[in-house]
Amino acid sequence: MTLSAAIADEAASADALERLLEATRPGMTRVNAMILDRARSHVELVPEIARYLIDAGGKRLRPMLTIAASMLFGSAKGSEVNFAAAVEFLHNATLLHDDVVDESNMRRGRAAARMKWGNQASVLVGDFLLGQAFMMMVETSHIDALQVISKAATIIAEGEVFQLAKSRDLTATAADYDEVIGAKTATLFEAATEVGAMAGGADAAGRRALREYGRELGFAFQLVDDVLDYRGEAGRLGKNTGDDLREGKMTLPVILALKAASDAERQLIVDALGHEDAGPDKLLQVRAIFDRHDTLGQTIARAEEHGRRAREALRGLPASEMRTLLGDVAQFTVSRAY
Amino acid sequence: MTLSAAIADEAASADALERLLEATRPGMTRVNAMILDRARSHVELVPEIARYLIDAGGKRLRPMLTIAASMLFGSAKGSEVNFAAAVEFLHNATLLHDDVVDESNMRRGRAAARMKWGNQASVLVGDFLLGQAFMMMVETSHIDALQVISKAATIIAEGEVFQLAKSRDLTATAADYDEVIGAKTATLFEAATEVGAMAGGADAAGRRALREYGRELGFAFQLVDDVLDYRGEAGRLGKNTGDDLREGKMTLPVILALKAASDAERQLIVDALGHEDAGPDKLLQVRAIFDRHDTLGQTIARAEEHGRRAREALRGLPASEMRTLLGDVAQFTVSRAY
Repeated sequence: MTLSAAIADEAASADALERLLEATRPGMTRVNAMILDRARSHVELVPEIARYLIDAGGKRLRPMLTIAASMLFGSAKGSEVNFAAAVEFLHNATLLHDDVVDESNMRRGRAAARMKWGNQASVLVGDFLLGQAFMMMVETSHIDALQVISKAATIIAEGEVFQLAKSRDLTATAADYDEVIGAKTATLFEAATEVGAMAGGADAAGRRALREYGRELGFAFQLVDDVLDYRGEAGRLGKNTGDDLREGKMTLPVILALKAASDAERQLIVDALGHEDAGPDKLLQVRAIFDRHDTLGQTIARAEEHGRRAREALRGLPASEMRTLLGDVAQFTVSRAY
Repeated sequence: MTLSAAIADEAASADALERLLEATRPGMTRVNAMILDRARSHVELVPEIARYLIDAGGKRLRPMLTIAASMLFGSAKGSEVNFAAAVEFLHNATLLHDDVVDESNMRRGRAAARMKWGNQASVLVGDFLLGQAFMMMVETSHIDALQVISKAATIIAEGEVFQLAKSRDLTATAADYDEVIGAKTATLFEAATEVGAMAGGADAAGRRALREYGRELGFAFQLVDDVLDYRGEAGRLGKNTGDDLREGKMTLPVILALKAASDAERQLIVDALGHEDAGPDKLLQVRAIFDRHDTLGQTIARAEEHGRRAREALRGLPASEMRTLLGDVAQFTVSRAY
């Protein structure tokens, strides 16, 4: 895509998230009520930690996608609320465990839960949220949706283990990266939209379309996130710029850079990768190498391709405002990178 | 119970575990095959860690109880195998996370997984096992059993958080202790026998009887375990004697001792409780205090009461060899304390 085309698309999609928020508001009101309700526990520490994370909010993009997907097919009868809340709980459980695994200090613009309550409580409250997610699914008696969610939970965990195994592995390939983000990110987006479609009464083709849409959207989302980690400002995403570098995460920008780098450049990257004390100067040096080899640009190009595929996945469905909006959301996801 | 009565009962129940193993062998062969199969993953680290834990074995008491409960009602059609394997996976997931939370070094007589692969992998492989447990449940399309298991997973996590919150809390009461073990141990025993009964085609009364049997058995089991932690020899249970003391766990023997202790005794307990370097001399001092106030004896008396209730729960069911055997298992569970 040319820069001017990108700018035009960005204008068209700039308010996509606002419009998604608006379109899903009635459903999300019920989802948010359920989220608060199910974060309760007579064990004080549980709601305290769960709410700390939940109140920080995030965009609630995944449950919004579940609601939107259900609306696309028109005959949602209420199970979409449970599905959406379960998706958000599964996501939050993953975040709690991720922060323990990554030893992250920040999450959603404030101290990670583990910094306030310790790793132990973060692990256990994550388990609680996971259990509650399944309980909300079970309440709908929708065994096919349960299958989607339980499979997603398994694949996400597998992906996280794979990412851990590849941490600081200088031989990691773009294919490894695809496997990691396909499992840890795209799987949940895919599940979110697929169960939404199911709740909305989609036929097999509709379900398949939304599954593919969610999967491609998830890839685009994570690719852009991994670009922003090197380009954003601290606090902007509730993460610190350079976290991935310090944590030794083999994201695509670094994989592509290592492949193209001179010996001297390679050494610079290796010296910074996975070193907790890699400061702003190191980060700037690494970013200069990325710029020389255009690895952020190449990563964005991949995100654009996935965004395009996400929109394409919807093409076979009847035209509707919601279909257009979901297409714009895919575009917006990519345009965050600019 | 008098000592001689206890010895007589012990003789009657001594081989109960052997007989349970024998009676459930055909079912357990299928369960063990499923456990191995579902511990597989293309991500190498996953089966490596899962099998390390699974191969260490343990008694597989919980899945055996599921199979036994299903046999009691006679019309098991295969779902009991999935249920039993899911119960064991849920148990193993809990162990992996527990060891991280408790910072345990040992599990089932060897180094805890976290000592070999780190806390990070233990958290994530635990999540994987949890996901697989739900997938095995989902395969049976048995929504009521799924409800039992997902509720159990949630309550177990809540109980672990409560235990963490009460760690080294000198004001912890016997009621707090009951809440902790009711949630973290009895809930899984209860779920194991209840879903077994469901797989076997039990009616509501049968299901209720097995739920109650499992719950009481779980209480008895944990009470005895908490006695053995102060009395066993290192390695006997794959735990080190005195672990609970060093980890600051408020188990019943220590709660009762604190209540009865003189100021000097209290100070001795406080000095050892939750101190990683509390050595054999400290442990002996604490045990001497327990002996003076008979707190291990009182804990065993409670276990006996729960064992009695477990046997009583079965009383309304038709007499059968399996019913007798399950009663003997309850007796055996208590007699381990002698």
